[in-house]
Amino acid sequence: MTQSECAAWLRQRDDFLIITHCRPDGDAIGCAAALCRGLRHAGKTAYVLKNPEANERYAPLAAPYEAPEGYAFRYLVSVDLAEEGIIQVNAADLKGKTDLSIDHHPSNSGYAKETLLRPACAACGEIIYRVLMELSGSVDRETATLLYIAVTTDTGCFRYKNTNPETLRVGALLLEAGAPNDLNRTLFMKKRRSRLQLESRIIAGLEFFQNGEACIGTVTLNMMAESGATEVDLDDIASVSGQVEGVETSITMRETKDGKWKVSVRTGQYGNANAICAEFGGGGHGMASGCLIEGSLESAKTRLKEAVCRHWHEAPV
Amino acid sequence: MTQSECAAWLRQRDDFLIITHCRPDGDAIGCAAALCRGLRHAGKTAYVLKNPEANERYAPLAAPYEAPEGYAFRYLVSVDLAEEGIIQVNAADLKGKTDLSIDHHPSNSGYAKETLLRPACAACGEIIYRVLMELSGSVDRETATLLYIAVTTDTGCFRYKNTNPETLRVGALLLEAGAPNDLNRTLFMKKRRSRLQLESRIIAGLEFFQNGEACIGTVTLNMMAESGATEVDLDDIASVSGQVEGVETSITMRETKDGKWKVSVRTGQYGNANAICAEFGGGGHGMASGCLIEGSLESAKTRLKEAVCRHWHEAPV
Repeated sequence: MTQSECAAWLRQRDDFLIITHCRPDGDAIGCAAALCRGLRHAGKTAYVLKNPEANERYAPLAAPYEAPEGYAFRYLVSVDLAEEGIIQVNAADLKGKTDLSIDHHPSNSGYAKETLLRPACAACGEIIYRVLMELSGSVDRETATLLYIAVTTDTGCFRYKNTNPETLRVGALLLEAGAPNDLNRTLFMKKRRSRLQLESRIIAGLEFFQNGEACIGTVTLNMMAESGATEVDLDDIASVSGQVEGVETSITMRETKDGKWKVSVRTGQYGNANAICAEFGGGGHGMASGCLIEGSLESAKTRLKEAVCRHWHEAPV
Repeated sequence: MTQSECAAWLRQRDDFLIITHCRPDGDAIGCAAALCRGLRHAGKTAYVLKNPEANERYAPLAAPYEAPEGYAFRYLVSVDLAEEGIIQVNAADLKGKTDLSIDHHPSNSGYAKETLLRPACAACGEIIYRVLMELSGSVDRETATLLYIAVTTDTGCFRYKNTNPETLRVGALLLEAGAPNDLNRTLFMKKRRSRLQLESRIIAGLEFFQNGEACIGTVTLNMMAESGATEVDLDDIASVSGQVEGVETSITMRETKDGKWKVSVRTGQYGNANAICAEFGGGGHGMASGCLIEGSLESAKTRLKEAVCRHWHEAPV
């Protein structure tokens, strides 16, 4: 459906519940909270299903909109959720029930009855902004702030290659609608001391291959403990490995509490992150994807390196 | 003068030489090169005076526009130059001769015969863009790229608090004019290994005061040698000290080859960087200023800490 059709669809209905994906980032939580607030602004009843995996940076954003126990919704709306395989962990019983999916992932599986998909958008927040403007003609300061967080999270504050003129224009409109321009200083430029410690350990342990154009960084539970790092320190941790000059493809492997490896793959001018992760049952975007691998650190590393080399000459689409 | 008046002024004249400030950043070099290219696009003769202090990241941007030996200019134009005290080192004999200053520093001393000053602009590049659009109605891909570098350098790629809707809109227009959107990945997200090593040393040596809301980081010649770091690794090095959560005012002291301390002061919600640096004969913006201090590391630190405390409750304007 188009943005106008989506706004009309929302206008004609009521009693919404909003869900998103597991391990939610700023785009997921920002969109869920902003859509909820925007719907209420338009006179609707709307709630966000609490996401138990939201970290301490993002959880407070959605907290004011969480559905009370026993809330009887009529329409289920998902934001930033490409497929039901990564639905938020407490929404397994809602699979197959999504009425509307608003998303920007090209890999959206079409699981919802209606879908507003704009893969050209760098962040789902851009789409939510346009839909709310069609719905109400304005967004308030708080909604603008939530959407600015959404857009800047998914674009690394306008630094990632997905940033396009439309992204920057939506950013300008959100600042004009009242989003504070010092938000990015807090979100992107400030780091806890524990995070800085963890980063220096990751950098010390980086392994390079493909003539220095690819590298693998590791985050073990032991490194976490040594740094005093917690969940919130892991936000966008994949960017640490990717920051070395000359590196096109970077992999970050995070040890999970049950001894598996949560893997993030980022590619640049070449290498298809989606295809690499698909080999291990994962996926995402062409330049940023994820998967989960079992086995020892060394065997997981070897398999990942081989997959990177296999997809080296593919375009990151 | 207004932007239109500035464009008209340029249209009526010819044979320009463009200068900027010492230790030029991306805004200074990007603006100088872009203005030169834009003037040529409008049929004018224009050159940039080579800036011997441009580092290896920025020097190539202006290289194609450098004035040949003996170039006889008729009009001297400065960009991003607030006062003649910080004129580029090889332009001392041009002091008092600037015909037009295009600048965004509120502290512009009015040294030029004509001045286009827009202190609301985050980057001088925004002003150059508007002037060139008035002059020619378009900028080419290469000029847009130079201006995108200018704008993103001065705003930390749209992360600093100076970023405003106009900044983002100019960014959008520059992307549409052909500036590559992966520029920021190279400029802001990639770091040489030597730079990463230097950063970890700065972080290890950070000293906090004012209840952890202020800190001082140091870069000695010894640390540079240990890291294998060169001049290019020092670009925006002041941001390293400023990135710790809870820090409002950060100071970075760099040892110079002749044993002095080149100081950068960054402030946040409070503290006036301009006033702090003015105590030592320096200046700049309310939130980002610089000065040069003589003496031992310890005495310089003590004097700086005292100055920070004195101006703690001032607004960063």
